[in-house]
Amino acid sequence: MKDVIMGSNFLNSPFYKLNNLSQQLSIDLWVKRDDLIPYYLGGNKVRKNLSILQSSKSKVDAIITNGGAESNHARVVALLGAQLGIKVHLVLHGNAPSSGTLSGNSFFYRSADAITHYVDSHDIAHTIDRVESDLKSQGLATLTIPGGAHSSAGASAYAEAIDELSFEPDFIVHASGTGGTQAGLLQGVMNQNWSTQVIGVSVARGRERGIEEIAKLLPDSFPQEKIIFLDDYRFGGYEKFNNELLQLIKGTIRIEGLPLDLTYTGKAMFALHQLVYCGAIKEGSKVVFWHTGGLLNLTSTQL
Amino acid sequence: MKDVIMGSNFLNSPFYKLNNLSQQLSIDLWVKRDDLIPYYLGGNKVRKNLSILQSSKSKVDAIITNGGAESNHARVVALLGAQLGIKVHLVLHGNAPSSGTLSGNSFFYRSADAITHYVDSHDIAHTIDRVESDLKSQGLATLTIPGGAHSSAGASAYAEAIDELSFEPDFIVHASGTGGTQAGLLQGVMNQNWSTQVIGVSVARGRERGIEEIAKLLPDSFPQEKIIFLDDYRFGGYEKFNNELLQLIKGTIRIEGLPLDLTYTGKAMFALHQLVYCGAIKEGSKVVFWHTGGLLNLTSTQL
Repeated sequence: MKDVIMGSNFLNSPFYKLNNLSQQLSIDLWVKRDDLIPYYLGGNKVRKNLSILQSSKSKVDAIITNGGAESNHARVVALLGAQLGIKVHLVLHGNAPSSGTLSGNSFFYRSADAITHYVDSHDIAHTIDRVESDLKSQGLATLTIPGGAHSSAGASAYAEAIDELSFEPDFIVHASGTGGTQAGLLQGVMNQNWSTQVIGVSVARGRERGIEEIAKLLPDSFPQEKIIFLDDYRFGGYEKFNNELLQLIKGTIRIEGLPLDLTYTGKAMFALHQLVYCGAIKEGSKVVFWHTGGLLNLTSTQL
Repeated sequence: MKDVIMGSNFLNSPFYKLNNLSQQLSIDLWVKRDDLIPYYLGGNKVRKNLSILQSSKSKVDAIITNGGAESNHARVVALLGAQLGIKVHLVLHGNAPSSGTLSGNSFFYRSADAITHYVDSHDIAHTIDRVESDLKSQGLATLTIPGGAHSSAGASAYAEAIDELSFEPDFIVHASGTGGTQAGLLQGVMNQNWSTQVIGVSVARGRERGIEEIAKLLPDSFPQEKIIFLDDYRFGGYEKFNNELLQLIKGTIRIEGLPLDLTYTGKAMFALHQLVYCGAIKEGSKVVFWHTGGLLNLTSTQL
């Protein structure tokens, strides 16, 4: 499925050194720009959802998935489905945005004619079941993709993505939500026999729950102590932020011309700075900042 | 200068076929994604401003340029200057955006600490002169970049960019503002000895004025009849649009997952469709849609 949609090389996102930040932090800092994957407005959800569709052997008439009202994952599934001629149902929690806004993911999934079901978070599972039954009763073959494309097929995309790095870094730092990206990166590092530390910076979940969910996507034999999931940089929770985080984002724009957002990548970059300051990432370390996307989370934020 | 800032290959933006639109329009349609140039949030202004700085032989302490309040060009100059440690003054016309918005180019040029001067459009030239004098009286070496990076050095970036196409198209269609991109593409096509028709779709100017300005950036010997500058798809002028244009943009998102905006690329894509329908672009033609950027113009639009 992946090759049908795009050229062979499309997922090889830009990878380059951030010279000014490297100098400022006395490390060798590179960025992997998955936000610039050219399809469906990019980001880590593109890799994961393509991998999930590719692993689905049978015919699919309709996809059901869930996410927040400004979910990157929902946007990718909606656009992917529209391009393939597959009907998409999105079960979303949070407030439906006003129809006059073009700033966020919601504009894109609505443009793609995805069918939206806005519900309270405790009604998500129930609504998915109901939509699934409805579609099946119409004789349609459905595929239900977990929120955030959090599955082993989704994670495997990031095990493969490790192959795109041109050297073995000491650290990979990235924003970690449901943990699928992190599980994939950990698997990829292990496949390479690298000693790279993968540092997931939680954007929502507490440490214990985060590690538990990541571990579920990895082989039982995977050493759990290698799962580094930091919950100190959540700024109060999902989509929460403060002025300090906003200043860090502005500083990164100023010094590198690199866009980050207040929900995901900003928090990961904030953590990276703190880890350097406290010595957990030592001077001279080779560090990859894996940019997982999210520009539309920034542009839809109101201060 | 270009090579100092970035790796050798960074400007080689993605180039791929739009399969669904090709089928719909019965042409062979490819897209060149300059919106995904990884530096300074991409777009044609990155190529042009890098080229201008590269051609500037002397040391520069401060850059002055001008544009609209949500100018892509102003954003690129601000970010480029900030990364190089060069002070940037922006002379902007239009309304200063509210400080609480993160959706547009203004957030980025303000994050980069560019100094902004909001003026009426008839005060632009005067203000540029005044700022230039002030800076020079402080002993600073200034570089004044024309609005839109409209200069022969800027245009030359697009003469070079033609080398990135892997085949000779019958048509290149793109949004044409001040015409620098178009002049460059025309020169590049001529350098290749191609018979490609470069179709500039005006986003603001009338035909006569547009052609005149493009001709100024080309050698005197350049045959003026080869400058195709269509002013029928302006939707009333710069930043103007209607529901039909919005529907075309939504359709492109739906069918290809490709983002366009209401100020630039949307108008070019609209024209492309019309040119196919009226037979000016014939069935089976090889067409390149050159995406010149502008996502932040979309996200900062209020319906």
